[in-house]
Amino acid sequence: MPERALIAAVRTFAAHHLDTADVCVALSGGADSLALTAASLRAGLTVHAIVVDHRLQDGSADVAETAAGQARGLGATAEVVAVTVDGDGGMEAAARDARYAALDAARRGRPVLLGHTLDDQAETVLLGLGRGSGARSLCGMRPWARPWGRPLLSVRREQTRAACTGWGLRPWDDPHNDDPRYTRVRVRGEVMPLLEDVLAGGVAHALARTASQLTDDADALDAIAAQVLATASDDGLAVEPLLAVPAAIRTRVVRAWLVSLGVRAPSHRVVSAVDALVADWRGQGPIAVGGDSATRFAVVRRQDGLTAESSPR
Amino acid sequence: MPERALIAAVRTFAAHHLDTADVCVALSGGADSLALTAASLRAGLTVHAIVVDHRLQDGSADVAETAAGQARGLGATAEVVAVTVDGDGGMEAAARDARYAALDAARRGRPVLLGHTLDDQAETVLLGLGRGSGARSLCGMRPWARPWGRPLLSVRREQTRAACTGWGLRPWDDPHNDDPRYTRVRVRGEVMPLLEDVLAGGVAHALARTASQLTDDADALDAIAAQVLATASDDGLAVEPLLAVPAAIRTRVVRAWLVSLGVRAPSHRVVSAVDALVADWRGQGPIAVGGDSATRFAVVRRQDGLTAESSPR
Repeated sequence: MPERALIAAVRTFAAHHLDTADVCVALSGGADSLALTAASLRAGLTVHAIVVDHRLQDGSADVAETAAGQARGLGATAEVVAVTVDGDGGMEAAARDARYAALDAARRGRPVLLGHTLDDQAETVLLGLGRGSGARSLCGMRPWARPWGRPLLSVRREQTRAACTGWGLRPWDDPHNDDPRYTRVRVRGEVMPLLEDVLAGGVAHALARTASQLTDDADALDAIAAQVLATASDDGLAVEPLLAVPAAIRTRVVRAWLVSLGVRAPSHRVVSAVDALVADWRGQGPIAVGGDSATRFAVVRRQDGLTAESSPR
Repeated sequence: MPERALIAAVRTFAAHHLDTADVCVALSGGADSLALTAASLRAGLTVHAIVVDHRLQDGSADVAETAAGQARGLGATAEVVAVTVDGDGGMEAAARDARYAALDAARRGRPVLLGHTLDDQAETVLLGLGRGSGARSLCGMRPWARPWGRPLLSVRREQTRAACTGWGLRPWDDPHNDDPRYTRVRVRGEVMPLLEDVLAGGVAHALARTASQLTDDADALDAIAAQVLATASDDGLAVEPLLAVPAAIRTRVVRAWLVSLGVRAPSHRVVSAVDALVADWRGQGPIAVGGDSATRFAVVRRQDGLTAESSPR
């Protein structure tokens, strides 16, 4: 029974991650977040539903009020927060930024549960594939990244819809979910079904499992790289300790060191060039590694270490 | 010019990995391996082409002799090796096993260069996604796994075809490459073009880059796990050193320990259950971990360690 599966998923999540029974749920009115609201209440949590009205579609205020009313009918408290989305960096990204900011302002110290399902996770991994920036781009969404919790990452989307039916709830269908101008909609509607057909099933589960395992891998490598960085960095970055560790850790130490200097999101190209100063030293010149609006950084090798030099723009 | 790109790729490969200029090339007569044969000769290598006749299609002996003749015309020595494929475990897998066995028998101490391209690598990663067994299933093919070398993993398939045209070579088109009963053919013909369209290009490169980075990651984690296993295993497996390392390493130590006991390819389920004896100990009973035709293994926790118990079937 999908209702029971959802309640069990929330209970397991709460037991592992929460130290309070007092939570917020980010409620859109769609099947996933509506089912999450109901399942959280039935799992014994005290729920405050936060409905963000993005004001991007006609009638969005009505949709938000309906969702808040449904939450109250289930036994939650609820509020509607209207936001203004400005489209810097694309509408999807801007709407997400505005939504998370509004949720963070309204949560008042409580964790916020989000309705992402196993299908969302699988889609996120496929979207990450296109970036090709290694493990981190395939890690998907974390089940728990304080204050954000995702209890339904092991639950299929069809289960949340079935649970709504079982509980007599009528979810809202966001027309954006069928708009093929959104990459995620095409991943959901075209790529996933084709992959399921070609690879003979189980792809969503396989992608979600991959995300979870790669998150563990990336966490482990980052933790080891942080230890190496702590011993290897002083004024600059010592080369010798870096030559003693595998390439995957060495490049992470280089990346973390660059970030510690103030280089924002160093590119694969930059990290590789600086890494070559360590592992493939043939007398190369300084490597320009970016900087900010006021300062440029370059990394040079001097004897047994790397040094960062900064110059004004 | 694709011809130059191919020659450069072979030269770079040889400089990094080979300690001999005397190589074999696995030649099917298709564009990839035919271009590899020509590029290897032009890169200054001494090439012996091995053409495996799988005897699965009418006229396969003619195709093989034609390919061998083309190789000789380019300045290589060449031989045709006919094999018998029996379909145990599927025709594709059986043909591959027979092919690699024949190549290994014919190579006489020399490395064998294979014509896999960046597109093959991308397809391999997508095929691995369906398995969902973490980083290792997404690592693709290694550039160099003695005696097998893949100099063209950074080269696109269309470049090998263009290079054949440039050198006046007529490659053979394997009809199996268009047969949609093969999963790889559907990945190539349907999944990759859709992903390129939906994710707006660059997917093959992104997948190949992912494979390379995840190979480094998996190698690093395996190396660290091997060190931990060496200190933690004696009669059994000590729990304490495993609790000091991240989950990604702990599960790899558990997997490596099980393999060292004689458990063949332990499943994710088995590794997780044994890992729970370490990291989530609540007094569980013995875990059946498989074995071989004669012996069954079970793992039990005793005080501060895991012990394997074997019993006859």
